[in-house]
Amino acid sequence: MSLPALARIALCAAVLLVTMALPVRAADREALLTQPGVFGTFAVFQMDHDWWDLPGEARVIAVAEVKGLVEQFSRTIVVESYLMRGLSDHADLMFRVHAHALSDTQQFLASLQGTRFGRHLVATSYLHGVTKPAVYAPGFPEDLKQALQGPGDAGTKSYAIVMPIRKDAEWWALDHASRGTLMQEHTKAALPYINTVKRKLYHSSGLDDFDFITYFETDKLEEFHGLIRALEQVKEYRHDRRFGHPTLLGTIRPLDDILELFAR
Amino acid sequence: MSLPALARIALCAAVLLVTMALPVRAADREALLTQPGVFGTFAVFQMDHDWWDLPGEARVIAVAEVKGLVEQFSRTIVVESYLMRGLSDHADLMFRVHAHALSDTQQFLASLQGTRFGRHLVATSYLHGVTKPAVYAPGFPEDLKQALQGPGDAGTKSYAIVMPIRKDAEWWALDHASRGTLMQEHTKAALPYINTVKRKLYHSSGLDDFDFITYFETDKLEEFHGLIRALEQVKEYRHDRRFGHPTLLGTIRPLDDILELFAR
Amino acid sequence: MSLPALARIALCAAVLLVTMALPVRAADREALLTQPGVFGTFAVFQMDHDWWDLPGEARVIAVAEVKGLVEQFSRTIVVESYLMRGLSDHADLMFRVHAHALSDTQQFLASLQGTRFGRHLVATSYLHGVTKPAVYAPGFPEDLKQALQGPGDAGTKSYAIVMPIRKDAEWWALDHASRGTLMQEHTKAALPYINTVKRKLYHSSGLDDFDFITYFETDKLEEFHGLIRALEQVKEYRHDRRFGHPTLLGTIRPLDDILELFAR
Amino acid sequence: MSLPALARIALCAAVLLVTMALPVRAADREALLTQPGVFGTFAVFQMDHDWWDLPGEARVIAVAEVKGLVEQFSRTIVVESYLMRGLSDHADLMFRVHAHALSDTQQFLASLQGTRFGRHLVATSYLHGVTKPAVYAPGFPEDLKQALQGPGDAGTKSYAIVMPIRKDAEWWALDHASRGTLMQEHTKAALPYINTVKRKLYHSSGLDDFDFITYFETDKLEEFHGLIRALEQVKEYRHDRRFGHPTLLGTIRPLDDILELFAR
Amino acid sequence: MSLPALARIALCAAVLLVTMALPVRAADREALLTQPGVFGTFAVFQMDHDWWDLPGEARVIAVAEVKGLVEQFSRTIVVESYLMRGLSDHADLMFRVHAHALSDTQQFLASLQGTRFGRHLVATSYLHGVTKPAVYAPGFPEDLKQALQGPGDAGTKSYAIVMPIRKDAEWWALDHASRGTLMQEHTKAALPYINTVKRKLYHSSGLDDFDFITYFETDKLEEFHGLIRALEQVKEYRHDRRFGHPTLLGTIRPLDDILELFAR
Repeated sequence: MSLPALARIALCAAVLLVTMALPVRAADREALLTQPGVFGTFAVFQMDHDWWDLPGEARVIAVAEVKGLVEQFSRTIVVESYLMRGLSDHADLMFRVHAHALSDTQQFLASLQGTRFGRHLVATSYLHGVTKPAVYAPGFPEDLKQALQGPGDAGTKSYAIVMPIRKDAEWWALDHASRGTLMQEHTKAALPYINTVKRKLYHSSGLDDFDFITYFETDKLEEFHGLIRALEQVKEYRHDRRFGHPTLLGTIRPLDDILELFAR
Repeated sequence: MSLPALARIALCAAVLLVTMALPVRAADREALLTQPGVFGTFAVFQMDHDWWDLPGEARVIAVAEVKGLVEQFSRTIVVESYLMRGLSDHADLMFRVHAHALSDTQQFLASLQGTRFGRHLVATSYLHGVTKPAVYAPGFPEDLKQALQGPGDAGTKSYAIVMPIRKDAEWWALDHASRGTLMQEHTKAALPYINTVKRKLYHSSGLDDFDFITYFETDKLEEFHGLIRALEQVKEYRHDRRFGHPTLLGTIRPLDDILELFAR
Repeated sequence: MSLPALARIALCAAVLLVTMALPVRAADREALLTQPGVFGTFAVFQMDHDWWDLPGEARVIAVAEVKGLVEQFSRTIVVESYLMRGLSDHADLMFRVHAHALSDTQQFLASLQGTRFGRHLVATSYLHGVTKPAVYAPGFPEDLKQALQGPGDAGTKSYAIVMPIRKDAEWWALDHASRGTLMQEHTKAALPYINTVKRKLYHSSGLDDFDFITYFETDKLEEFHGLIRALEQVKEYRHDRRFGHPTLLGTIRPLDDILELFAR
Repeated sequence: MSLPALARIALCAAVLLVTMALPVRAADREALLTQPGVFGTFAVFQMDHDWWDLPGEARVIAVAEVKGLVEQFSRTIVVESYLMRGLSDHADLMFRVHAHALSDTQQFLASLQGTRFGRHLVATSYLHGVTKPAVYAPGFPEDLKQALQGPGDAGTKSYAIVMPIRKDAEWWALDHASRGTLMQEHTKAALPYINTVKRKLYHSSGLDDFDFITYFETDKLEEFHGLIRALEQVKEYRHDRRFGHPTLLGTIRPLDDILELFAR
Repeated sequence: MSLPALARIALCAAVLLVTMALPVRAADREALLTQPGVFGTFAVFQMDHDWWDLPGEARVIAVAEVKGLVEQFSRTIVVESYLMRGLSDHADLMFRVHAHALSDTQQFLASLQGTRFGRHLVATSYLHGVTKPAVYAPGFPEDLKQALQGPGDAGTKSYAIVMPIRKDAEWWALDHASRGTLMQEHTKAALPYINTVKRKLYHSSGLDDFDFITYFETDKLEEFHGLIRALEQVKEYRHDRRFGHPTLLGTIRPLDDILELFAR
């Protein structure tokens, strides 16, 4: 049987698999994306050079396998995909995976690396964190609390930025109240950007070499830049022993779009 | 059909494409290169070793594809090219791309990396920044303002240097007026070089691991060296946690010249 | 003879070898895992890309050879295996080896790298330490000592984390009593996690670029994260010149499971 | 035509080229090596592993091409060659190039990398500096000035060492007189070595990530070591934020000797 | 002629070469290993992956060539060999070379890299130092001097450890007497280990990026670890800006054993 024929069959199989998959329960997806106690993993990959030496049909088959795999894992984890190529060096694509257990995430990523597509991926960084209820917000004054509960912009965004942070020992030596006061100044500085930049915080001490992973989504990169500038000017910033390194910048893209880019 | 014949056809096609392209509106180009709110990207690439194993004709075809691509994107972005080979390690060529949106820049660079030429490029660094109106100059005394508005040297320059900068936390903790005073000293120190070294500043906090990207053009590298020495001697320099690393030095070259170097 | 036939014979041979091996004396294993004066090595490996180009049968044979090797060394060393792929970058698998002499460990690891499987392994980090009787605990108050001797959770855990530590010169310049006081605060902070996170300490000054290797096992990564957060908040943490870098996170897996993943 | 025959022709061609080249004017060479305002480049290369897979004849031809190239450029630049292999890691050979313009240096090095020999060279570091009249010596006391003008040892030396230096911000914040006083102490400490170690200083702020490149030649490495030890003990050394990294150690060798080593 | 036949001839040739070599004069070897003014080089190599793709006979021939080379140089240099594989990452074997001139060492190592074996070696670090008479010991009190002249353990040891050190500027700014007092404390702390750990000091300022290379041999790694712990607790340790990085740990092995490991 010819390779193009095989490719077509593989694609059909992938479509079938998607169709037959148990419907992902929206409630679970919502829980994984919003609740505390969920593990978030940022997995950044670079495509090796051999990939492009594969014949087109082989690449189409390889890519279909990945779609099937993501579907197969959709009952336990939520996978979001990002195109990094053209914006971040040493990075072509990134997955953000949310799971109740990191062993589920590992199973997905190890399976991915075992696919014909994944064998050409070089894992350049893995960042892990866990979501928690807001730590300092409960102690904030009422007006600040209310301001934080504004509607925000619920729509889909174009850009995503990941910035890991490591605090210095002095930060952790401060008592909770002192840290709260500094975080209040930090939060006020960020308020003007609440409608244009979405933020999500992951706690990562012990899970990787950082203390926090900050994840941002925005349509307006200039506003995001303004937010970071504002945050650099508050006292809490002096306690960031490491801020970025890496700074990961990409665009939010459906997995199909990204895979197509590597299949063609 | 023989490969040389194919190569000739490819070149003709590229020429046609250029001829047929909507004329790039000069006004837009001017706006992208001079106005605030524009995103600038410095993309540095190294050619892999396999490139040179391709037959000459394949390299000619691959190079023609790049020319076509740059033309195709010329309605949304401005691309300038630099030869780094022989002056900067781990760098063979650099593009400076100006765009109203980084997603346009990404589309171009990801497309470039997808070409037969681009598959042999290793992206060694990506730096991003946004242009802004002068931050401290409005507060400068009148005579300094006037000195800054001298004619400068409008001609084309030979050399380009890119130096990213990261400020320390103390810098950002200073109030605007104190930073203005320090920047006034900085600006005065740079005045003697205003006619021999052109400068352009990009703000990059949050977009990469730096706070600023400084871009220089000059015909007289000794003057440029003198400028940097002068800037190292003002108090503001103490707040540069990182200055360079990488320092990117190259020559400004038409894209055709650079591509020809890799085609032959 | 066909390769699949060879593979089957190799597997039989491996099984035979295991069957014929002198029984590993449980007492020795216990001693190596619990007594002071034992050397522990953490060897992290990444699989190269050529591995996946081998035909399936060749991989099956290669993997069988590793099983035989581990069995063969089981009289002098204890080898435990971890799957890092999908959780740690630049790491696919890790071995923890306990031995009375590092020369035994070297013999095993050098033999491993000489196998058909091992020739595809890239050694990304080697950490070595020696176990010792508790240094500061004898000086702790009675109630703390008793709390430390609680039953703990003896069961098998899912996750393992390795964090190397380098102390600053100030730490070592403190006298024993001062360090004891700081370690007492450290130990109290860790007490709430004694039942969910198992810890083991290796002393490594001189054996690698660190002073200590801390090894953790847990089923509850959130608890482990809580433990590290608690430890970041005590005064002793200020003396950690390096903490992690690398932080190695993986899952505890039987060797057979890991090898199967690379054989299929 | 057989390859050995081709090789012989290539060698003849190279010899002819040398013979026909306009005689390099000694005055220009002298000027480039001694006058201020000249750019010095240190280009360090490592040979890739594929080079050794080329048949011997191909290597002979490739090497002849390099000789021709150096001759061709001898009217605008001065090229000196060093064997680093066996003394510096990640370095096999180094060129020191002196030119009135770095664009000439770039043309040579880019042409070199385009040769069949150069395609196998990996550029591991490029350092650039410019020569200047002595900055502090004019303010030194007369006896020190006279001591500095001793005859030195004019002969050819065996070893060359390159050490780049980056000063801290405090150094540049000192006024000229204070720096002069510190440099006087530095100069006196170096005096005992004036006859055994030759030094040359390049100013590099802005041209690479350093402020200075110090270049040494000696026959007695122990004396050179003594000089560096003496310089580490003066107050000016406290302002060296970076000293070495890389320290490049090699032997001064005629280009023919080095090329022969890679041809055989 | 078949390859195995060639291999046998190569081995005979190597044996002949050894037999015919002028006898290495023991006095010279003794002088190189014990006298001041001798240069010591630590050359660490990693075997590339292509090596293992060579047929067994080719590897046997390649290895025989190395034995011949070491013999050939035995009149000017002393070469000792270490197996690093299985104990140090990015290192498979190490040579310690003693010579009156580094140019002799370079000739040997460059020749080695030119052999069929050496073409597969990647030089991962080169450290150089020179031996000197004891610097501070002459000023020590008599009882300490006598204690240092104890018999030591003259026997062959199993393990070797190399730790390079870079002192901070404050150290070098101290006067000789102050440094002597600190070194006296250092020496006393090391006394208890004088019979179990052999030490040798090389001075390297200017020859590489370090100030000293400390070389240790021991049979008891736990004692060696105790020595390093003791040295971390004296005041002099505060002046070690860099201590290790890399720490090189291996076993002392006859060259034949190491070569056999790579030949089989």
